[in-house]
Amino acid sequence: MIRSIHHVNIVVRDLEAAIGCYERVLGLAVTRRDELPERGARLARFRLGGSWLVLVQPTRADSVPGRFLAAHGEGLFLLSLGVASLEAEFDRLGPGAADGEVRSGADGWLVRDLARGSTCGALLQFCEDAQAG
Amino acid sequence: MIRSIHHVNIVVRDLEAAIGCYERVLGLAVTRRDELPERGARLARFRLGGSWLVLVQPTRADSVPGRFLAAHGEGLFLLSLGVASLEAEFDRLGPGAADGEVRSGADGWLVRDLARGSTCGALLQFCEDAQAG
Repeated sequence: MIRSIHHVNIVVRDLEAAIGCYERVLGLAVTRRDELPERGARLARFRLGGSWLVLVQPTRADSVPGRFLAAHGEGLFLLSLGVASLEAEFDRLGPGAADGEVRSGADGWLVRDLARGSTCGALLQFCEDAQAG
Repeated sequence: MIRSIHHVNIVVRDLEAAIGCYERVLGLAVTRRDELPERGARLARFRLGGSWLVLVQPTRADSVPGRFLAAHGEGLFLLSLGVASLEAEFDRLGPGAADGEVRSGADGWLVRDLARGSTCGALLQFCEDAQAG
């Protein structure tokens, strides 16, 4: 069962500049910062109702967000849908629905990307977040 | 006050094909369809918790979503943030924060885009939705 928009990722060139920009637009202080070296990214996020808006600055040009930034420039990058169980959702969708394996996101979130062929071109993933209840 | 992720728009080439694709991925039936001739778009949306995922098929190449599709291909297009009052938020941000005027979205939503200079390149808007309470 898909429960929510868990988070939306926006790729930015300069995290500190983007934090200033989004703090102003949202009228909110940044909630939390994280480093994800294995993803090649530095993150900052804002709580918006039951969802998160996550700013992602690539730290390596050859990372997934780094390649996205080079190809598309700054902007909306990835939509992460909250699920109760990654395993149950990928079992439901059957073979070929996933792109890659389960990985750890920020804050213990478990995420797994959907194959582009399942999503009409958008970069989507499922996210299992024990803290989301 | 920014209250929520009100909706996320995904631009698609073929709305019927995309509805089939997203009904499968989400395990949900499409909630509603709309035509927005003045925006040059045909829409279908899914309820996800307190947010909407909206598929947008351009009906004219010279519309905003049509130009996005031509430039970027299918994918994440626009993030719409739920606010209690458009007027109050743009008053708070001051001159130059808006791109264009207030317009009517699907289902009586009132939306107004943010100038790209305020958002580090992402296409963002505020949305006032009387039904969101």
